[in-house]
Amino acid sequence: MNRRHLLSALGAAGLGAGLIGRARAQHEMHDMPGMSMPPAATPEPSPAPALGGARYRPVHTPNGWTLPFRINDGVKEFHLVAEEIEHEFAPGCVARCWGYNGGTPGPTIEAVEGDRVRIYVTNHLPEATSVHWHGILLPSGMDGVSGLNQPGIAPGETYVYEFTLRQHGTQLYHPHADEMTQMALGMMGLFVIHPRDGEAVPVDRDYAILLHNWALHPGTSRPDPSIMSDFDLWTFNSKVYPATAPLLARSGERVRIRLGNLSMWNHPIHLHGHRFLVTGSDGGRWPHALWRPEVTEIVGVGQTRDIEFVAAAGDWAFHCHMSHHTMNAMGHGIANPLGVDTRGVADDVRQLLPGYMAMGGNGMSEHSAHLAMGMMAGPGNTLPMMTGQGPHGAIEMGGMFTVLKVRDELPGDGRDPGWYRPPGRELARRVSNDPGFGTPLRRPKA
Amino acid sequence: MNRRHLLSALGAAGLGAGLIGRARAQHEMHDMPGMSMPPAATPEPSPAPALGGARYRPVHTPNGWTLPFRINDGVKEFHLVAEEIEHEFAPGCVARCWGYNGGTPGPTIEAVEGDRVRIYVTNHLPEATSVHWHGILLPSGMDGVSGLNQPGIAPGETYVYEFTLRQHGTQLYHPHADEMTQMALGMMGLFVIHPRDGEAVPVDRDYAILLHNWALHPGTSRPDPSIMSDFDLWTFNSKVYPATAPLLARSGERVRIRLGNLSMWNHPIHLHGHRFLVTGSDGGRWPHALWRPEVTEIVGVGQTRDIEFVAAAGDWAFHCHMSHHTMNAMGHGIANPLGVDTRGVADDVRQLLPGYMAMGGNGMSEHSAHLAMGMMAGPGNTLPMMTGQGPHGAIEMGGMFTVLKVRDELPGDGRDPGWYRPPGRELARRVSNDPGFGTPLRRPKA
Amino acid sequence: MNRRHLLSALGAAGLGAGLIGRARAQHEMHDMPGMSMPPAATPEPSPAPALGGARYRPVHTPNGWTLPFRINDGVKEFHLVAEEIEHEFAPGCVARCWGYNGGTPGPTIEAVEGDRVRIYVTNHLPEATSVHWHGILLPSGMDGVSGLNQPGIAPGETYVYEFTLRQHGTQLYHPHADEMTQMALGMMGLFVIHPRDGEAVPVDRDYAILLHNWALHPGTSRPDPSIMSDFDLWTFNSKVYPATAPLLARSGERVRIRLGNLSMWNHPIHLHGHRFLVTGSDGGRWPHALWRPEVTEIVGVGQTRDIEFVAAAGDWAFHCHMSHHTMNAMGHGIANPLGVDTRGVADDVRQLLPGYMAMGGNGMSEHSAHLAMGMMAGPGNTLPMMTGQGPHGAIEMGGMFTVLKVRDELPGDGRDPGWYRPPGRELARRVSNDPGFGTPLRRPKA
Repeated sequence: MNRRHLLSALGAAGLGAGLIGRARAQHEMHDMPGMSMPPAATPEPSPAPALGGARYRPVHTPNGWTLPFRINDGVKEFHLVAEEIEHEFAPGCVARCWGYNGGTPGPTIEAVEGDRVRIYVTNHLPEATSVHWHGILLPSGMDGVSGLNQPGIAPGETYVYEFTLRQHGTQLYHPHADEMTQMALGMMGLFVIHPRDGEAVPVDRDYAILLHNWALHPGTSRPDPSIMSDFDLWTFNSKVYPATAPLLARSGERVRIRLGNLSMWNHPIHLHGHRFLVTGSDGGRWPHALWRPEVTEIVGVGQTRDIEFVAAAGDWAFHCHMSHHTMNAMGHGIANPLGVDTRGVADDVRQLLPGYMAMGGNGMSEHSAHLAMGMMAGPGNTLPMMTGQGPHGAIEMGGMFTVLKVRDELPGDGRDPGWYRPPGRELARRVSNDPGFGTPLRRPKA
Repeated sequence: MNRRHLLSALGAAGLGAGLIGRARAQHEMHDMPGMSMPPAATPEPSPAPALGGARYRPVHTPNGWTLPFRINDGVKEFHLVAEEIEHEFAPGCVARCWGYNGGTPGPTIEAVEGDRVRIYVTNHLPEATSVHWHGILLPSGMDGVSGLNQPGIAPGETYVYEFTLRQHGTQLYHPHADEMTQMALGMMGLFVIHPRDGEAVPVDRDYAILLHNWALHPGTSRPDPSIMSDFDLWTFNSKVYPATAPLLARSGERVRIRLGNLSMWNHPIHLHGHRFLVTGSDGGRWPHALWRPEVTEIVGVGQTRDIEFVAAAGDWAFHCHMSHHTMNAMGHGIANPLGVDTRGVADDVRQLLPGYMAMGGNGMSEHSAHLAMGMMAGPGNTLPMMTGQGPHGAIEMGGMFTVLKVRDELPGDGRDPGWYRPPGRELARRVSNDPGFGTPLRRPKA
Repeated sequence: MNRRHLLSALGAAGLGAGLIGRARAQHEMHDMPGMSMPPAATPEPSPAPALGGARYRPVHTPNGWTLPFRINDGVKEFHLVAEEIEHEFAPGCVARCWGYNGGTPGPTIEAVEGDRVRIYVTNHLPEATSVHWHGILLPSGMDGVSGLNQPGIAPGETYVYEFTLRQHGTQLYHPHADEMTQMALGMMGLFVIHPRDGEAVPVDRDYAILLHNWALHPGTSRPDPSIMSDFDLWTFNSKVYPATAPLLARSGERVRIRLGNLSMWNHPIHLHGHRFLVTGSDGGRWPHALWRPEVTEIVGVGQTRDIEFVAAAGDWAFHCHMSHHTMNAMGHGIANPLGVDTRGVADDVRQLLPGYMAMGGNGMSEHSAHLAMGMMAGPGNTLPMMTGQGPHGAIEMGGMFTVLKVRDELPGDGRDPGWYRPPGRELARRVSNDPGFGTPLRRPKA
């Protein structure tokens, strides 16, 4: 358990316990240098805080972080700063985006049912903004639709929102002013509310991932908000594979992944090797009788879904099942010479059209090899379409893809445990070309 | 309760009660001038009809109406007329569409489980049509797939369908002949069947909204049926915001919104400020144990979803959560000068290309101001992309957006109650630029 | 019950029963000529196998087939061969695709919970491949993600996978190597696992259909894997209507349709005339309390859905409800002269642009007539957009469409029973143009 998590938990517990935490935590800043270093990969989950009142296991936002808070006279105070940022989708691809507090997604806000929260929002963007607290039951004047519920927050202004959390679950926050543009540029975040009285079925690990899409056309450096469906990058917490952090767990642990979607596609998210239960949404944790076993769940735009499972040892792919969404830029709309001998052709074309990239005559895999060898490249600031190296060679993925790494034991410091080594014969293996079936089996003609 | 609702209820009740209503209602026409004036906004809901037998609270179709019927020897008779119409999506945008009985969507058909219905369909289109009664259990010869279940209804012909309603729920009707074209031009309607024995959990307000999309390219006046996903207009009952009627309710009332979708996208529909239950679909009202709490529900193409909630005071946005679907025409595919100083550029371009509209260098909001001031316009017959004025300025929405207005008291005549005034301090407010956090919080570098 | 089904059942039963079947079945080949002729339409379902142990009713894959297996020392052995194939989407449209064992989709793999399976995969493609067993709980090294879980299977190589089935339900198999390309070209299949102890609510018919989309641009003969959403062909088991086999059932039978989706769209699948229950997914059969009544169910990409219903006599459309997905090539992106007198124009244009096809001035139906008469055609190897002839004329469909044919009695040999003849007056019929309502009903002006 690192310091940041400890203090957040203390803060929450203090609030729940009334006087105990209040005196200590009042005006205490939780973002002091050195206190809240995000771990390189996945932290050890903290034990449930032991102080009286609210107890919760903090969520972990892979590639992201949790917003520090201070306690001010019994109210949890947060401060979001809307601003232009430089964001790296993966090494080799950087863009001017808009976000909160230096990043996209904005930091995860974490609180406890019953908390009174006060959230300051400072606007450093060149146009007005506002924040809508998606799925949270609150007074109409705090709902954040600019024009309808409040004036827009003009550039340079700070607004304050204040309400009491009357629910728990996985919520979101995002602008409701020039929404199409501001969300397309990356303004969004997760808002997790823990139950006041703990959970009937507690989890050992709790991850939070926000889905998004970006029209960062090859060779450009600013997302294009006018694109409605033909996006270039598909992200988990604004990162594309292989920059997406792996998810870690120990064998047998109960793991929750909270998924939110503020993109333009309804994404079917698939986990390998496990059957999970869908246990809740932005409508809150569902009654137990509604928990539904799945291996792929559609997370609709403007929805959240909580999925929970018991971890089984191995390296398991976790990704959107739409095959173009596990690709990086240039995964669609390129020329199709499949079945054509293209040797030399692409080089010729590139003399006329720098950065030209054709599909391979034998499929796309030859590209990932070329790209890995540096023999072929798209325009500047453009990622290879398929990438990633695993223990057995090229993984040939991108976009909304990461790996769930489950081990019997994990390094205690949250470090990546490396690749899984399957025991004994539990590995697909090459055999003689003739498995003894005689001629290959074909469907008989009717 | 207005006359139309009264008579519909009487008719239904009469049918259910057998002899009581029949003598009085037989061959009585319910569309006499002056009898069925639709209210400007939302009617007071009627009390449950008191006559014996079937009782139901009529649905209200915002921006639409309910088809009158007559009772003929114990059968409820309706008459749909398929025809070309002139349709206004919002003031300033009119198109030649196809619809029923003068409008799109067609009038809502409303009946009661157990009713025998006889529906005449007259075709005034230039090509054959048919009507499929979507989700209704009926004889195969009444199912309406032209070629398969019946001949197409040729121009000028009238066909009659007759069947007994063996279910209740939110159903649809639409052509099943040249379906792609006829639906793209607006031929569709809702078919609501009330339970014969009332509802275990009755509602106080019952709204019905049909989702659709339209390829009305800027500057044209007829929807293009060849478009598969890149639509220009996204509608609630064939209207775009701000022409979409607000939904009204009193605080504490139980409200149902029946949503149907005959577009080409699976739309995630989001309600602010409330947690709703999804209680049924075109498969009928679900068992209570399946009611699922949500704040955003995907309504798939060819699906209906009933959502129910207890109304809380305020002005609450209700919309599709895909950010391009709360925009009007020109919301996608335009130039992207974000971050570029565009002063003067657009004016220069417009000398070459009349109607040219670039995104603002600081975001889109500056446009909505320009448009409101009449300084900037798209081609003729084209709505501004973002529009709507609220009590606090520009709402910057369009398309599939409306406002749920909940008040402790409502005007008795269904008039719009104006904007919500939040009590006391329940309003996000501007504060000093320095909330006292010291330097703005940023994620520490790892 | 045909020979193939008999032997499969015997094999499964033998395995369950231990010694009984093993001796007989060992190394017995189930694909001997003449043993496994697929029926022209729908087979009579087999009675449940009577041998001890596992009993199951084999699934039927319309337009497809089930992969034979052999028993080798208590293990069920299968052999998949990945290879380029020539595939006919419907008469008149043939393409070079990639598939398994001579076809796309690959043969359905069918086994029983508890079975130990050993699956050989031979790669005859020009690039490396792998097979991911979608939704199956198995060791990490058998999961099939190339690079992550295993090396890619190079051209010419054979790999073997082996695992024990610890679950039942409707699963999938597909490559996880150059996935975007290989799936776009047709590599995919269904993997059905029957429960070991039978089903609490057994079904009489069990169908399995895999949804897909193809970018087979008009006039070309190889699918284009670079397309992300604007596809040309939408298929049930890789066939477009009218080449899709009808589904047959007797009145009153309980029917299951297992639907899988490996396309790029979340498809809402609609059945006419029946209310069905959604009873399971690739997450397995759901608890009874979760069975949800629907008439349209979204089958997300990378999902499966089992739907079950009691068959009612008639001819019932079964299709994706997105209207462009029941069209064949050229259903979108063409010119829009609706409302224009186009007589002669298209002919003029075709002198400049061979194969030009405009929408009709009165809608699209006139096209299907023209096409049926051979007066109008797209480029070579291109299907008409709307097609199919029913008992009452043109059905005007294509793509993801077929007909469920339910009769009180069926021919015993699985033959198509022809068209339904509705009894007595159960058919929509033409009447006098004046149904006696007086002037056509219009919505009164407000």
